[in-house]
Formats: sequence, structure tokens, C-alpha cells
Amino acid sequence: MNHLKDVPLAKAYLLLNHGPSTIVTCEHDGVANVMAAAWVMPLDFDPPKLLLVLDRNTWSRHLVEGSGTFVIQLPSRQQAELTLAVGSCNGGETDKFERYGIATSRARHVEAPVVDGCVAYLECRVVEEPHNQQSYDLFIAEVVAAYADERAFSNGRWHFPNDDLRTIHYQAGGAFFATGEAFQVARD
Amino acid sequence: MNHLKDVPLAKAYLLLNHGPSTIVTCEHDGVANVMAAAWVMPLDFDPPKLLLVLDRNTWSRHLVEGSGTFVIQLPSRQQAELTLAVGSCNGGETDKFERYGIATSRARHVEAPVVDGCVAYLECRVVEEPHNQQSYDLFIAEVVAAYADERAFSNGRWHFPNDDLRTIHYQAGGAFFATGEAFQVARD
Repeated sequence: MNHLKDVPLAKAYLLLNHGPSTIVTCEHDGVANVMAAAWVMPLDFDPPKLLLVLDRNTWSRHLVEGSGTFVIQLPSRQQAELTLAVGSCNGGETDKFERYGIATSRARHVEAPVVDGCVAYLECRVVEEPHNQQSYDLFIAEVVAAYADERAFSNGRWHFPNDDLRTIHYQAGGAFFATGEAFQVARD
Repeated sequence: MNHLKDVPLAKAYLLLNHGPSTIVTCEHDGVANVMAAAWVMPLDFDPPKLLLVLDRNTWSRHLVEGSGTFVIQLPSRQQAELTLAVGSCNGGETDKFERYGIATSRARHVEAPVVDGCVAYLECRVVEEPHNQQSYDLFIAEVVAAYADERAFSNGRWHFPNDDLRTIHYQAGGAFFATGEAFQVARD
């Protein structure tokens, strides 16, 4: 069963505001790839923009520069092993979708696969900034559509129903944190 | 007792890799300010660089453009109330240090105060990129020194000894997550 619901664009930044690790998918001329990316964050609210650091040595870099689009997925804790796996090999040498048996659907507004089972995803179009891309491996993109698993995110808030559906935060060397306890602070 | 120890620059990105929320301090011509910033992430490893989104309507923006330096602090869960408070008023109208009774020390390599009791901080020098600053409120900075509370971070890894010293992740409207359970995934 598909639990993904549209997230209004003005609330899309809330999917990333707590700093989760992500999976990036992209496709150019019929060639697709999937990789992990911890260095993703919001840049603006409405229309929503985000930042992605995309190393020049990755196969995805080549595809994203060709297509000008990508998808940012938020893997759940159940997908941490997959996240590490797709971040540990090169898509120019390995078809990672086949190697790891990754089921995908199609993005609606950009040409790219979407990894099934993620708790949220954002379809993105690159805002061309050649100096940032060439000097810093830094991509600015506009979010053109966003979706989230309604069991974990609704009305602009994450409310993880169980540990399996929590988002994750990468440290290094295969070590992650799950998103932890929610708490509320009162304004003075 | 001061538990802060130097973090080697090549490991400074590990302080931010899991996407925590931050407190930014800055100072120009003897005027200091403190604010909250959730939109901070690593940009490069060694020498370490980071990204900070700094809205043009903030008082800190004026000070950072003047001094070219700032400090990124990682507040602990104990400091979540303080984090929300300094993110909810304007430093041009209020001396937030005085209003909230914030104890500070001095940064060593840049002219800025450092909020006492944070679990880590990074001293930063802005890499001038006027187009990013003006078009996107986006600042690129080089990390020139980094420090962490050895009870919570050592040898390049976070290992929170209790809930009070966990880092935090901002949602919105005063709602935070604590950094949660650590888990290890094996590479295939």
C-alpha cells in the first residue's frame, strides 16, 4: 500500500529541516543512478530551494549535469543498510538498482526513478550556477514537488509512529543515528 | 569544568554531518550578536568548509558582512530553550546576551563570543562569494578551528553519554528532535 501524500510546496522545507541523510536518484538519456548524500539542506521556503553537495567524481554528477534534475529521498531506518550500500560503490561501474534489487517508481515532474519505501521525497530542478558547481561541487535546486508518508509526516510535522519509519542521520564508517525523541520548547 | 578539546580540522565536518541545529555568534566593531540557525551543513572536508544560510533581515547578517567571521555552536538538549529564544528576537533591538543571561567565552582565532556550555563549536572565516550572499543569503566559510566536549565527541565520533548532552534538530514552532539512538550498519 502506498502511504505517500503530496506535501504543499511551502511546507517542503520541513521535510529536511531536522537534517536527515538522503538518497539521491537521477537519470539522463535513459541512464539512471542512485547514491547517498548527507550534505543536503533547505535554502529557501517558497518557492522551496535546497542545496546538494555532489562530488565531481561521482557518476551521478555526470547525470545531473546532463539532465538538470534529481530526486532527494529520505530513507527510513529500515533502509539504512541500503543507504550505506548505494553510497559505497560507483554507478559508472555497477548498476546499483540491479545489484541491490531496488524497487523504484517514476517521479512525476522530472525524469528520474524514485526508491520505493522511502518516507519522503522531493523532485528537484537544478538552478544553474556554474561557479558553485565547478568550484565547490555545490548545486542549488528548486523543489518542484514533494511527497511524504502520511504515517510519519502530516500537517507540516514529523510524527514517527515507530522506530522503523524514523529518518536517519549519517555519522561516518557505517554509523548512523536515528532521529530521536521529539520535544517541545515554549517561546518566552 | 571545561570539557572542550580541540578537534583536528580534518575531522571538523563530523561535528555537523548528522545535521544538528546550531547557534551562530558574531561580532563587528565591538557589537556582538547570537542567533539560531538550522540551515548549516558541511561543504568540504580538508580544509573544512561549511554553508550557512543567513537571512538579509537579521542583525547578524550585518555583523558577519562587516567582520567576515562567525562561530557555529552546537547546543545540547539542555540549551534547546535558549536556542529557540535567541532565534525569536532581533539583536538590533535587544541585547540577547543580557536578556537571556548568556555566559560567553572568547573565540581564539576570530573576534566573536562563544556561548558557554555548547557541546561543540567551529570558528569560521567567510569565503567571499557576493553573488551567493546577495542572491541566496548563502555564506560559504572555512572552518579555522573546532572544539568539542570530550564527554560527547572524541576520535571523530559522537557518543552522547546522557540525554542532556545530546545535540538537537529543529522542526518548527518550538518543536525539536533530540539526536536519537546510534546504530551501526555493515558494508556489504
